[in-house]
Amino acid sequence: MRRVAVVGLGLVGGSVARLLHEQGVEVTGYDATAATRAAARAAGLRVADDVADVCAGEPDVLVLAVPLRAMRTVATEVARHVRGGTVVTDVGSVKGAVRDAVTSAGLGARYVGAHPMAGTEHSGFEASDAAMLDGARWAVTVDGTTTREAFLRVLGLVTGPLGGTVHVLTDDVHDEATALISHVPHVLATELLGVVADAPVRDVALGLAAGSFRDATRVGRTDPRRTEAMVTDNAAWVASALRVVVRDLEQLVRALETNAPVGEFFDRPEPVRAPAPAPGTGERRRVELDDAGAWRSALAAAGARGAVVVGVEDGAVEVA
Amino acid sequence: MRRVAVVGLGLVGGSVARLLHEQGVEVTGYDATAATRAAARAAGLRVADDVADVCAGEPDVLVLAVPLRAMRTVATEVARHVRGGTVVTDVGSVKGAVRDAVTSAGLGARYVGAHPMAGTEHSGFEASDAAMLDGARWAVTVDGTTTREAFLRVLGLVTGPLGGTVHVLTDDVHDEATALISHVPHVLATELLGVVADAPVRDVALGLAAGSFRDATRVGRTDPRRTEAMVTDNAAWVASALRVVVRDLEQLVRALETNAPVGEFFDRPEPVRAPAPAPGTGERRRVELDDAGAWRSALAAAGARGAVVVGVEDGAVEVA
Repeated sequence: MRRVAVVGLGLVGGSVARLLHEQGVEVTGYDATAATRAAARAAGLRVADDVADVCAGEPDVLVLAVPLRAMRTVATEVARHVRGGTVVTDVGSVKGAVRDAVTSAGLGARYVGAHPMAGTEHSGFEASDAAMLDGARWAVTVDGTTTREAFLRVLGLVTGPLGGTVHVLTDDVHDEATALISHVPHVLATELLGVVADAPVRDVALGLAAGSFRDATRVGRTDPRRTEAMVTDNAAWVASALRVVVRDLEQLVRALETNAPVGEFFDRPEPVRAPAPAPGTGERRRVELDDAGAWRSALAAAGARGAVVVGVEDGAVEVA
Repeated sequence: MRRVAVVGLGLVGGSVARLLHEQGVEVTGYDATAATRAAARAAGLRVADDVADVCAGEPDVLVLAVPLRAMRTVATEVARHVRGGTVVTDVGSVKGAVRDAVTSAGLGARYVGAHPMAGTEHSGFEASDAAMLDGARWAVTVDGTTTREAFLRVLGLVTGPLGGTVHVLTDDVHDEATALISHVPHVLATELLGVVADAPVRDVALGLAAGSFRDATRVGRTDPRRTEAMVTDNAAWVASALRVVVRDLEQLVRALETNAPVGEFFDRPEPVRAPAPAPGTGERRRVELDDAGAWRSALAAAGARGAVVVGVEDGAVEVA
């Protein structure tokens, strides 16, 4: 991995660029905002002045790190200028919608999705930090068209200089899982704050609030526009998970109102109450990167069972 | 404050007894379980062998620190033996139900409610720790029958050797507020874990889970029986808050499914998004503890607006 381009230098793109730079990779950044380009240059990064310039360097990997609402426009611009063997990836929190945008722009054959499970409640290049990605778990997403070369290039970037642990997944499995562990938690944190905001006992509630409320609402205090974008970008999976939440809470309310037993509600999480085992500690399995492409579904199936990449060779990937 | 008795030496009762002992108060503990009595004695506490013995010492305050399901039985036993001017208080997380139990037992005239907003996900005397109560915010609850003497005794105990900050509240305001900031957050954390436990993508979801899921589910990992008891003890207020949550989430789901705007949902917490001001920094007000008893509603009204006790004299209490 010699040359990487990062288009969009916000919290995640900025952190990726800084970490790669620290790791000795030749990074070129770009951001549509001149002030961000200046800040990135002041931080010691090499920054191009337009997308054409970024693509002209024929980077090994070009990372799209722009918000989803800008993805279609930026991907189209990249498609006009990209050349040679440059592979395209991204860092967005929703994978199906990004693939749609990238494919519409004509970049499908170069594309492999990626998403680091890391972030803070802040935004922008000023908040970016190489350390934010320390030991992060990443999803790398494939579909039936992913090429072996592009896949290995992105895998090499994430497990190499970015130091991540990789779950290989389909877009759908990624989007369903992140709805459950990130987007729905953001919705519930927002709702808890909202209920308190409207309550007649608001002031005393905030005065008495201790650890359980602080933790439960932490991500509800982030930029509401960013949370809204994340939730609407993954609307289908979020809505389907929230339907289950609404059904369960309605049953609980009815039981509480009628003095019916509620023990089952509290026992249901038992299978996941203990901390999850460390990733990579399960049974090891080697998947050959065969020409027929069966490796894509084999790796995604292992990923869906929680396996992560523990070894990468030219012709095979080992998961556990 | 010379002598205090603590009946029930679990997480909270044990922590109260340890802290009072550290502060040089003469504490006598009691627990129905012989092993707990032995553990408390081994920790250097003075422990009585029955409730009669505890009451015979005529403590200034007797703290009921037993679970709500045992409250009626224990309060009846205390009522049989209590004598002199002993004031009775408790540390339960629901105040209306405790007052009912204590009043039925005939202890109403001696009773003032109390609740420290502190805890951990562990239980039992082994988990008790004086430091758990460091700087805790306490609710002290009054009704139309609370005597000035009993109130000042409990206020003195909590703001004195226990080092707490006191919100004076009615039982209802306490129970509505704690439903919002503690019981409903416990329900939502439990539900989040439950949805993941049942999801086809469970393993990968747990594998990818990062900070937002860890914080959102922390209290969902506590002893489910304790959470269940807390929620059912405050069933009416929890159910009414959950009705609002169900209504709001249902609206959000419908909007997400139909591509309707959802910005309002994310903007609604704005009034409480910033951290709450430190308690005790508002306008100071002195409330005379008049014979007619108007002080009870005056203090509870100030408490409902978020005020805390900042000064205690013989004949007046200052709040801010």
